Amino acid sequence: MSLIVTFLGKGGTGRTISAIATAKKLATEGKKVLLVGQDSSPAWGIPLGVTPTAKPQEISPNFAAMQLNSAVLLENSWEEVKEMESQYLRSPILKQVYGQELGVLPGMDQSLALNKIREYYQSNNYDVIIYDGTGGIDTLRMFGIPEILSWYFRRFRDVFEESDVVKTLAPFVQPVTSAILNSAWTPNDITGDKDNPTAQMLEDGKAALNKGNVLAYLVTTSDPTAVATAKYLWGSAQQVGLGVGGVLFNQGESTDTIAADFSPLTVTSLPKYDSDNWQPLIDALPTMVEGVDAPKATEFIMAERKIKVFLPGFDKKDVKLTQYGPEITIEAGDQRRNIILPTPWRGSSVTGAKFQNGYLEVTVG
Amino acid sequence: MSLIVTFLGKGGTGRTISAIATAKKLATEGKKVLLVGQDSSPAWGIPLGVTPTAKPQEISPNFAAMQLNSAVLLENSWEEVKEMESQYLRSPILKQVYGQELGVLPGMDQSLALNKIREYYQSNNYDVIIYDGTGGIDTLRMFGIPEILSWYFRRFRDVFEESDVVKTLAPFVQPVTSAILNSAWTPNDITGDKDNPTAQMLEDGKAALNKGNVLAYLVTTSDPTAVATAKYLWGSAQQVGLGVGGVLFNQGESTDTIAADFSPLTVTSLPKYDSDNWQPLIDALPTMVEGVDAPKATEFIMAERKIKVFLPGFDKKDVKLTQYGPEITIEAGDQRRNIILPTPWRGSSVTGAKFQNGYLEVTVG
Repeated sequence: MSLIVTFLGKGGTGRTISAIATAKKLATEGKKVLLVGQDSSPAWGIPLGVTPTAKPQEISPNFAAMQLNSAVLLENSWEEVKEMESQYLRSPILKQVYGQELGVLPGMDQSLALNKIREYYQSNNYDVIIYDGTGGIDTLRMFGIPEILSWYFRRFRDVFEESDVVKTLAPFVQPVTSAILNSAWTPNDITGDKDNPTAQMLEDGKAALNKGNVLAYLVTTSDPTAVATAKYLWGSAQQVGLGVGGVLFNQGESTDTIAADFSPLTVTSLPKYDSDNWQPLIDALPTMVEGVDAPKATEFIMAERKIKVFLPGFDKKDVKLTQYGPEITIEAGDQRRNIILPTPWRGSSVTGAKFQNGYLEVTVG
Repeated sequence: MSLIVTFLGKGGTGRTISAIATAKKLATEGKKVLLVGQDSSPAWGIPLGVTPTAKPQEISPNFAAMQLNSAVLLENSWEEVKEMESQYLRSPILKQVYGQELGVLPGMDQSLALNKIREYYQSNNYDVIIYDGTGGIDTLRMFGIPEILSWYFRRFRDVFEESDVVKTLAPFVQPVTSAILNSAWTPNDITGDKDNPTAQMLEDGKAALNKGNVLAYLVTTSDPTAVATAKYLWGSAQQVGLGVGGVLFNQGESTDTIAADFSPLTVTSLPKYDSDNWQPLIDALPTMVEGVDAPKATEFIMAERKIKVFLPGFDKKDVKLTQYGPEITIEAGDQRRNIILPTPWRGSSVTGAKFQNGYLEVTVG
């Protein structure tokens, strides 16, 4: 199984440079590496020294790079959906809309990117997939899709089951969702069916995060705004279940304050990027993928009937907890996370919660 | 009517600093200014010197600032949608879902932000609204919503009219769309109805762009990647119909090459930001809102049966043109734009197209 690595931090702190250096380092160590760039501009190819392409191109032995283009990805997915529709329906209606017409709406970039990463992840052609995304909340929204979208499906299924709408929903929700997520299209109801390919895909996505197969690094400089952004993104990453493996401190020596800010993560100082000589930067990088001990986002301590959620970088006042039936909702840093209580705890209520040293501890009565 | 100003460029080139300096300058000139920050991190408040708030707070006379929080915006919109549903339906079903539960999916940030900006724009409480967004393609996707979403509604209406689906669509599409766009919810079909509030809202959004009430500035440093990114975003902005008023060149003297790269835009050199003294930066800024001559994105020359589309920063090979019935689709820079032929040209075909000096000239036979 591949590992997915991404970099979070304020713009201009050296995320793309760190991503490339990591790719070079891991490739030299013998791992097959794919670097995926979200930025669709030709500018993305400048530090790589190539004209970016939509398909993986070899940069050096074991190291391939590609650039995402949402308009093209959407077009291709749409044609596949139409193909599938024509297999299921005698009078397909989507054939009148052409993939080349479809404009890109907000959110499609992240959905199409996640889907493309998933394809490479499942292909097992690469040991490590490095995703050089926009590096902020949008990247976290992307990795949050499996959990949050599953929740919407589940919750709205329950609601709509009480009305007549659910059966009539499928014809529309299915093709559009399928195009964006590029999953198999069937005329069956997506929401109720555990064997449905879309439902399965979302479960796979959640599993990848839960098993720690997706890892983020924080990137910062000594600039206070960059440090504050990195701290915020750390907590926000935990909120979507994305583990953070360490901090890359660019172009400066880390201080005790910085180390304390990001404890228990290791802060690694990196030298300034020199386009003619990557080696000092590569040599300064930490291990990156092996033996990385990223604190778990969520832990269920069954014996104590406790849920421990690691939410670094937030204050007590930033964290909100609510319960609706079998789910608790944690709100922090412009993210909401719904956690379903484990089966033995169903029907129980939250009896206590405390926030201390970055951990939210919820007790279920 | 307010003017909306935004800044585009690579991360770390000084977009937020430029946005704040612009706000300070215009406020000093007597304009009522609202600065809206997309970044939900506390870091966003550092250069402003305040703890960011969700409601406008006064920074200095005439200058208020606020920070968007998607989780909160979504919650508020959802409660309004439920309220409206209960007025229309005898057995409302959405009341079982609470706004505090709703997670934020990709795309919601931009949709909720556009809606909030629209509210302030229509309130006429401010002369200038400065939107400090993520500054890249996501900001352009946001401003592209009115045109592209209108297209989806129109195109899929036509398709679904031939099936039985369209009438059964409304119950689902309506509440979710309404929550994100915060528009009035009615159980009527959204797509066919010109008087529908959502349709009207999208028309208003298109009009704001077409009338030049939304203006972007490119921000760059001398770094080649930053320059290439700014050029790419220039063309991409034109693709969504967003006019670009000029270039802010941060922390360096512009060169003849830079001037040529961005011609016919004016390139203004800005001094390095000093958190203790904003004045040199403010003094160096160009006029910003008055007498700005942003090249039009699209021009219809009726007498010559020509459409002129300004697409700077692209090569001929980057631009694709296709026609489907009464619409032509222009693809460039990870964006697709569908342009409906003016009524007198309906039924005509594209007979020629050339791309020269950044202009795409399409002739309709």
